[in-house]
Amino acid sequence: MKFLKTLSVAGAVAALPTLALAQDAASPSTEEFVWIMNTLLFLVGGFLVFWMAAGFAMLEGGLVRSKNVTMQMTKNIALFSLAALAYWAFGYNLMYPLGSWAVEGVLSGVFGPGVLEAVGVTLADADDAAYASTGSDFFFQLMFCAATASIVSGALAERIKLWPFLIFVVILTGIIYPLQASWKWGGGFLDEAGFLDFAGSTVVHSVGGWAALAGALILGPRLGKYKDGRVNPMPGSNLALATLGTFILWMGWFGFNGGSQLAMGTVGDIADVSRIFANTNAAAAAGAVAALILTQVMYGKVDLTMVLNGCLAGLVSITAEPLTPSLGMASLIGAIGGVIVVFGVPFLDKLKIDDVVGAIPVHLFAGIWGTIAVVLTNSDASLGTQLYSIVVVGVFTLVAAGVVWFILKATVGIRVSEEAEIQGLDTSELGMEAYPDFTKG
Amino acid sequence: MKFLKTLSVAGAVAALPTLALAQDAASPSTEEFVWIMNTLLFLVGGFLVFWMAAGFAMLEGGLVRSKNVTMQMTKNIALFSLAALAYWAFGYNLMYPLGSWAVEGVLSGVFGPGVLEAVGVTLADADDAAYASTGSDFFFQLMFCAATASIVSGALAERIKLWPFLIFVVILTGIIYPLQASWKWGGGFLDEAGFLDFAGSTVVHSVGGWAALAGALILGPRLGKYKDGRVNPMPGSNLALATLGTFILWMGWFGFNGGSQLAMGTVGDIADVSRIFANTNAAAAAGAVAALILTQVMYGKVDLTMVLNGCLAGLVSITAEPLTPSLGMASLIGAIGGVIVVFGVPFLDKLKIDDVVGAIPVHLFAGIWGTIAVVLTNSDASLGTQLYSIVVVGVFTLVAAGVVWFILKATVGIRVSEEAEIQGLDTSELGMEAYPDFTKG
Amino acid sequence: MKFLKTLSVAGAVAALPTLALAQDAASPSTEEFVWIMNTLLFLVGGFLVFWMAAGFAMLEGGLVRSKNVTMQMTKNIALFSLAALAYWAFGYNLMYPLGSWAVEGVLSGVFGPGVLEAVGVTLADADDAAYASTGSDFFFQLMFCAATASIVSGALAERIKLWPFLIFVVILTGIIYPLQASWKWGGGFLDEAGFLDFAGSTVVHSVGGWAALAGALILGPRLGKYKDGRVNPMPGSNLALATLGTFILWMGWFGFNGGSQLAMGTVGDIADVSRIFANTNAAAAAGAVAALILTQVMYGKVDLTMVLNGCLAGLVSITAEPLTPSLGMASLIGAIGGVIVVFGVPFLDKLKIDDVVGAIPVHLFAGIWGTIAVVLTNSDASLGTQLYSIVVVGVFTLVAAGVVWFILKATVGIRVSEEAEIQGLDTSELGMEAYPDFTKG
Repeated sequence: MKFLKTLSVAGAVAALPTLALAQDAASPSTEEFVWIMNTLLFLVGGFLVFWMAAGFAMLEGGLVRSKNVTMQMTKNIALFSLAALAYWAFGYNLMYPLGSWAVEGVLSGVFGPGVLEAVGVTLADADDAAYASTGSDFFFQLMFCAATASIVSGALAERIKLWPFLIFVVILTGIIYPLQASWKWGGGFLDEAGFLDFAGSTVVHSVGGWAALAGALILGPRLGKYKDGRVNPMPGSNLALATLGTFILWMGWFGFNGGSQLAMGTVGDIADVSRIFANTNAAAAAGAVAALILTQVMYGKVDLTMVLNGCLAGLVSITAEPLTPSLGMASLIGAIGGVIVVFGVPFLDKLKIDDVVGAIPVHLFAGIWGTIAVVLTNSDASLGTQLYSIVVVGVFTLVAAGVVWFILKATVGIRVSEEAEIQGLDTSELGMEAYPDFTKG
Repeated sequence: MKFLKTLSVAGAVAALPTLALAQDAASPSTEEFVWIMNTLLFLVGGFLVFWMAAGFAMLEGGLVRSKNVTMQMTKNIALFSLAALAYWAFGYNLMYPLGSWAVEGVLSGVFGPGVLEAVGVTLADADDAAYASTGSDFFFQLMFCAATASIVSGALAERIKLWPFLIFVVILTGIIYPLQASWKWGGGFLDEAGFLDFAGSTVVHSVGGWAALAGALILGPRLGKYKDGRVNPMPGSNLALATLGTFILWMGWFGFNGGSQLAMGTVGDIADVSRIFANTNAAAAAGAVAALILTQVMYGKVDLTMVLNGCLAGLVSITAEPLTPSLGMASLIGAIGGVIVVFGVPFLDKLKIDDVVGAIPVHLFAGIWGTIAVVLTNSDASLGTQLYSIVVVGVFTLVAAGVVWFILKATVGIRVSEEAEIQGLDTSELGMEAYPDFTKG
Repeated sequence: MKFLKTLSVAGAVAALPTLALAQDAASPSTEEFVWIMNTLLFLVGGFLVFWMAAGFAMLEGGLVRSKNVTMQMTKNIALFSLAALAYWAFGYNLMYPLGSWAVEGVLSGVFGPGVLEAVGVTLADADDAAYASTGSDFFFQLMFCAATASIVSGALAERIKLWPFLIFVVILTGIIYPLQASWKWGGGFLDEAGFLDFAGSTVVHSVGGWAALAGALILGPRLGKYKDGRVNPMPGSNLALATLGTFILWMGWFGFNGGSQLAMGTVGDIADVSRIFANTNAAAAAGAVAALILTQVMYGKVDLTMVLNGCLAGLVSITAEPLTPSLGMASLIGAIGGVIVVFGVPFLDKLKIDDVVGAIPVHLFAGIWGTIAVVLTNSDASLGTQLYSIVVVGVFTLVAAGVVWFILKATVGIRVSEEAEIQGLDTSELGMEAYPDFTKG
């Protein structure tokens, strides 16, 4: 008699009913199959979007100066961790109100923490027998929420205090993000109005961008960034790391957009996921190429950081509608995203809004463009509704985030001292250099 | 007539029976479906756990000084490669004795290399028709074995000789790890005693930790680490890399724990995998947050390396039972892991045990905690059996590893010369700097 | 009534027919199931091969000197982006001629851009009802095409101009690669002759290698590399990054080889994918170990860059036939790849061919070896046909690439000025340092 390899692991006890079931039914039912495949999509999509947290960390760590890298790493791992806890504690149920809206269609009546289905749940007992496991949905949605906070950390780098930033993250990921996301993805009033935002050019990226903009306005630019009417470049300390971060984000975006199909248990659904993968890749490539050519033409030489941001802007641009465009149209939408970044970065500098990594052009400007671009290929979209929704989400996020930033500024303060900023946050705030063996002097 | 794209690739020849089969049966049988999905889980889980090898390399490369980075990279890629060969040559069949125990329940009678199923195997001819492909199981299990060795390399960094370390790795991954793993996962006496260790807080992590502890005791601390009653900090050279390593490990852990469900072909199994993903993430986040808050409170400033290790300790803590806890309980278990690390690191320093990256607190201390914590949420677990198993595995690994380290020390020597250590292993042992353009002086 | 979580996202509208279908048929048909699983294999395999683009970037970025890192990053993200667009615009349909060959079996008659299936396609309307979605196939195949260009960028680093290199990339990925790939994978004359190349030791890796060789010959070595009859070592600036790149490539290779099974909807197919994963890992490990031991024996010390390249050569070696070998034979094939690299690198230096990262030994020499090694384990392979195909592809690529390089050299020039090369391409060509805070003096 053959020994069952590894099957004696605790978890495999749960597998035994599997085998029993295997003898019960000749074939898996379509309901079971679809449920299993949809759940698998959320799990694979979810770990890909998780990976974007590392991408943001590396991108930002590469674009800040070496004296602020330990702080940027600390902020990134802390913000993801706090987002995970906040989204569990309030966010998830706030975002998916489970049918009960306290203020009809606007505010959820459910404030408790997220709860998973029972161990070894059956289809009959599943929270949603026609869809997927709650655990996989929670896991997947959580990653989107955390991405919003990652966007903010880059824009406000090199001068914001750690703890006020983290308090903001908890409010953003526990309340602001889930509340506005419920208006669309929780079946709220924007969804009812016909707003289309497939994977979140507005719901995720512009929200991160608006929150970053509010912060950047209230926090002010880095010391010496704008002096005597000139923009003082403060080059990133590690462009290899920034490039790695961009590749990580690109990879994770397949999960971000592809997973947002929310289903892959039928031929039609997985073919759509395939379209989305191909279109997402095309938009990223075109965004990078647009920035490549444009910086060569405009400045006489290619600017790598613009190429990286062009690529990311291409990704943000296709996020509101990665399904319906053709490959050519996806490339065009992404390329325009790349163009937006090349003009958006100096535009912000002209306004003396200091966005360290270019997060606002990438996530907000290209997010708006992507949301509008839905009307180009999806006949269900209405330009008016798209614009209306952009404005609603923008005003709400800008005001909500602004209020939080103001309160934080007025109470605990949000900015480090001038000495600390000049010295670098790593030694002044954390007492730990990121590259102690290398830095000059 | 349409041309069959890519289908003329050699591999696709094997796909042709597929199409034939497609006409044979109207639907896949439940047995086939479950077997395919379980196999897929091992493949996806396996490449995620593989990725942890890169995570360990980056974490350790970031936490050693720049003069030892080439050596640390060499050790990490070499240890994984040797582990892969050793596990194939002896380990796999030692771990899964295929029903024949030479010494009843303790020592396997099978010592030959691992053998895969035939090409294009049918379910009837599969090694295990009710489970999954042998190739996928081998691939998945191999990655766990290699992880054990990765844990050791971090603790003993910056002073151990390359080849004696690699000899130890071969013995650890070819014999020590598989032998003790067979007691639980090969259906041996610990499994029969009712020991529960879902994905290996004890079987993998504490084993790595005990082996590292034995090595650290016999090898002694780095020169100057403990001098005049004081602990001399030796800061890591690249905290961006260490953070990247942590994110990689976090990502890989979804495969480590989720894959250990060993099945995803039913609603119940994939819902369980989803629970595991969500709980694993919660524990990691809570471990990081616990270390974040605790270092702020205790030292007045956040310590990034503690946050990274807190996160990893949260992951180790949830590994023995990632399925049964609620999200809240998983967070609590992970948070306690984070607390353990914050106290464990200085505790080891007090004992003058020099663990360069904190591997022993993370993998051994939190591994013990995680193994005990199973009783909190799994009613099948008995505290006595958990403690008994921790002790059995601990004593065995400590003694076995200690004997090997002693023999290596007495024969070839395990420690580089004082001059080599001061100069750094990169130039003294390998003649190759990791960052030749950057390092000072 | 329970609210349908997230199901109100635009994409989920497409999921509703799913649910309808779920009530139509009791179980998914075998055709649907196989199509869905094959598509999923392409998506997962595709994002893994995408990830190799990051691996090449990090490997190359770590092996060039710090003064050329920004340029190497720029080239890598630009080449992938341009490859994506070129493969869409011409390559895909050139490679898969859809049944119409303009010159019978040699040149495709289809030159239009790639077109995806309709949104929400049904099996009956799918481009290939017996296979997988076109989108997933396009996505997967595109990644192979881009890999070819990544190989070239490493060999020619530190002296080639950006734009001529990028023009070459467009021609390589839009025309040269797809044309020769069609001879095998598009069902052309090499396929009809019985040439076997499972995942592309020849079709992908040697093509990249031949194109790099042509470029290296025409471009000439870096200034000072070969002087007074001696080889002047120019050590890479970041071996941690190079190691990361190697781990990334290793991980991506599971998709590269495993995905090339092209099917996982049956027990036989997914068992084969599992064999491939296990064999691919064994070959990589053995290649690394061979280089580890050999450099120790030959030079008295281990050479990390050789170990990394030995690992990659093991991967290239197993790529032509990762399915039929046993684990032992896969290890042997990979180990010989590792040996080839250790001798291949100094051999090229003897010929004064300057290959910055060792791309030609790894991808061309080991690619040839791997293509020949097919005959060891696959009885369908003929040594004559393998050699014939190696020569055909080699001569074609060497000539085609050579002509393009010559034209580029004669027109726009392909090499930066001596001053620019000495100063480093980052400041001279791009005006942007990769590590501005670190580099000496």
